[in-house]
Amino acid sequence: MPDLDLVLAHIRLDGVPADLGIGGGRILRVAPPGSLTAPVVEDGAGLLALPGLVDGHIHLDKSFVGLDWIPHRPDPSVAGRIAAEKLQLRALAEPVGERARRLVAQIAARGTTALRSHVDVDAEVGLAGLEALLELRGDVASLLSMQIVAFPQSGVVSHPGGARVLEDAIRAGADVVGGLDPAGIDEDVEGQLAIVFGIAERHGVPIDIHLHDPGELGAWQLRRIAARAKAVGLQGRVAVSHAYALGAVPEAVLARTAAVLAEAGVAIMTNGPGPDPIPPIKRLLAEGVVVFAGSDNIRDAWSPYGNGDMLERARLIGYRAGLLTDAELRLGLDLVTIAPARVLGLPNPGLAEGAVADLVLVVAQHIPEAVAAAPPRSLVMKAGRIIARQGSLV
Amino acid sequence: MPDLDLVLAHIRLDGVPADLGIGGGRILRVAPPGSLTAPVVEDGAGLLALPGLVDGHIHLDKSFVGLDWIPHRPDPSVAGRIAAEKLQLRALAEPVGERARRLVAQIAARGTTALRSHVDVDAEVGLAGLEALLELRGDVASLLSMQIVAFPQSGVVSHPGGARVLEDAIRAGADVVGGLDPAGIDEDVEGQLAIVFGIAERHGVPIDIHLHDPGELGAWQLRRIAARAKAVGLQGRVAVSHAYALGAVPEAVLARTAAVLAEAGVAIMTNGPGPDPIPPIKRLLAEGVVVFAGSDNIRDAWSPYGNGDMLERARLIGYRAGLLTDAELRLGLDLVTIAPARVLGLPNPGLAEGAVADLVLVVAQHIPEAVAAAPPRSLVMKAGRIIARQGSLV
Repeated sequence: MPDLDLVLAHIRLDGVPADLGIGGGRILRVAPPGSLTAPVVEDGAGLLALPGLVDGHIHLDKSFVGLDWIPHRPDPSVAGRIAAEKLQLRALAEPVGERARRLVAQIAARGTTALRSHVDVDAEVGLAGLEALLELRGDVASLLSMQIVAFPQSGVVSHPGGARVLEDAIRAGADVVGGLDPAGIDEDVEGQLAIVFGIAERHGVPIDIHLHDPGELGAWQLRRIAARAKAVGLQGRVAVSHAYALGAVPEAVLARTAAVLAEAGVAIMTNGPGPDPIPPIKRLLAEGVVVFAGSDNIRDAWSPYGNGDMLERARLIGYRAGLLTDAELRLGLDLVTIAPARVLGLPNPGLAEGAVADLVLVVAQHIPEAVAAAPPRSLVMKAGRIIARQGSLV
Repeated sequence: MPDLDLVLAHIRLDGVPADLGIGGGRILRVAPPGSLTAPVVEDGAGLLALPGLVDGHIHLDKSFVGLDWIPHRPDPSVAGRIAAEKLQLRALAEPVGERARRLVAQIAARGTTALRSHVDVDAEVGLAGLEALLELRGDVASLLSMQIVAFPQSGVVSHPGGARVLEDAIRAGADVVGGLDPAGIDEDVEGQLAIVFGIAERHGVPIDIHLHDPGELGAWQLRRIAARAKAVGLQGRVAVSHAYALGAVPEAVLARTAAVLAEAGVAIMTNGPGPDPIPPIKRLLAEGVVVFAGSDNIRDAWSPYGNGDMLERARLIGYRAGLLTDAELRLGLDLVTIAPARVLGLPNPGLAEGAVADLVLVVAQHIPEAVAAAPPRSLVMKAGRIIARQGSLV
């Protein structure tokens, strides 16, 4: 047993008093309160410890956080909104990396210790956003772990050069290949999926596809994605973000779709949408489908809402999905900790001995109260180092 | 012009710098920054001033706030949930007035300066809850204004003695007569409505009916309520709380129902429900229907969520209803200020000269940002007195 660097003393693990012994960036001991010693002892003062929060879906390149207010510009068509966003982002004086850095600081102070960020890549912006995030990733590694998805916001098949830049992005260092509404944006479901799955196979990367297409159209594409994942041996390596369709199709279609998602190991990301239907989380989990959570839009061209606080996100999703009992509220925490950590491939998530010491402390009796109340973060630890106290980086 | 007691200097009104001159509990002057003097000058430091927040629907008698955690106990039937709640409330050692007082302190510190509270009255609890709230109302009058609805949680027609205790509650001082799912709970729509409207007519009180009944059944009852309101001259005096049905019926039914609600001056209260459908707020407002907001459940037998923060509620409702543009975000603020103030019959709501000086200060550039971000309350003023700073009562 290596020596302890630090003891986080007198915390609570889902209500049970404990000390955590930290060494080499990991939790080495979970022991009765007052039983551990180390060169540094941090008094947990009876606070509840939660695993580090994981944002399974963020767009670090899109946010206006910290800028003067930019009013939302509505547009009836998706293509119009995409075009409007390009104009708005292009008009910003500040480089994308600086905007993203400010958002990282905000969410790290709120306890996000790992994230999956999509980044726009297309024939116009090229790889500029990706390169900025790759540089930022190194700079902020002490605050959080970052996984990057090459996101074809402008389309794949329908956007000239879209397929090429998507593969270039993987060659340039993106960790995951993205997709976007194969029917709604590209109007060529098999065409887009062939390209996205082809890149995944050639480069050995996972897949994360935005799917807003509604109802039966969305559910059918989910089944097509699952079929491809199974056919090429990518079980457990494919995620679909949003999947509003699951919240809107008849029971028989839901049952059939959930079964193939579970069998193919296709995970579903939800941010607890507002007007759009939310996938039926309790039902999907019962069917064996992996469900995880993310912020999605944080004060950007798509939405003026959002702050990147993943415990508030768990509260929102829990409220929206009707997670009410203590057991259901604990599922709500899993959505923003264990579940996205597994999707991101982070080793050994949680607060057991051997885990990376990514954690947050909050004022709450236990996990159900922490999810229902979403209290502010008293302390944030990343890989054994205290990086924030009372909501501010140290 | 009476003398000013206090100047709230260098605040912003939806982004425009101003001073507010306060005297006799009212806003007497709205003037350019730095132009007013008074014995006391409070530096607004560029903060945004919003009208005092109004909670149009709260249950002060139900909340477990401040108690040890009580896990949610699910029950498939509404009758079962009502019975379970009675057992849970009866088991609490603390009197209802003390629980309600703690919740009032919490929400006053977050800027609620007026509220409409429902209080359970039935043949078992009798008027005990009402009497506790009537006493509390006087005690906390310096913090907030309180209107009380006699709420037949156990039913009216179907609950032996229900009609009598409902009328007794009005005689004992309740301001508003309530109702509850005439079809779903009483299974006698005309029977319950005849009793509720009869009490309203005899005692000259407004009406506020909980209506969870779904789809066409709910929409039909909304039209029956509107017809009765018009027939007996109670236009502008009737509210229906929840009205999930409006979020679930076909377009033609919605249009027909909205038209009669607007014509009869029946207001709709929403809390921005989670799994239940939300009434289409933008559409209803466009049709001339009054829409206002309330907290509803705050950590009680019905839901572990909720904290009584009405600016967070505006954010939640805005997110849920897709209020995105600046104009729509301003409608979101109206839902928790002007609109419920009018439903409660509060005189002259807002921040104009002559208004009661109920207001809050927050860190935000303007109203759209305040609704999208729901920042904490830097200062709360009730009738010209500063009652809270930085989220704590003074």
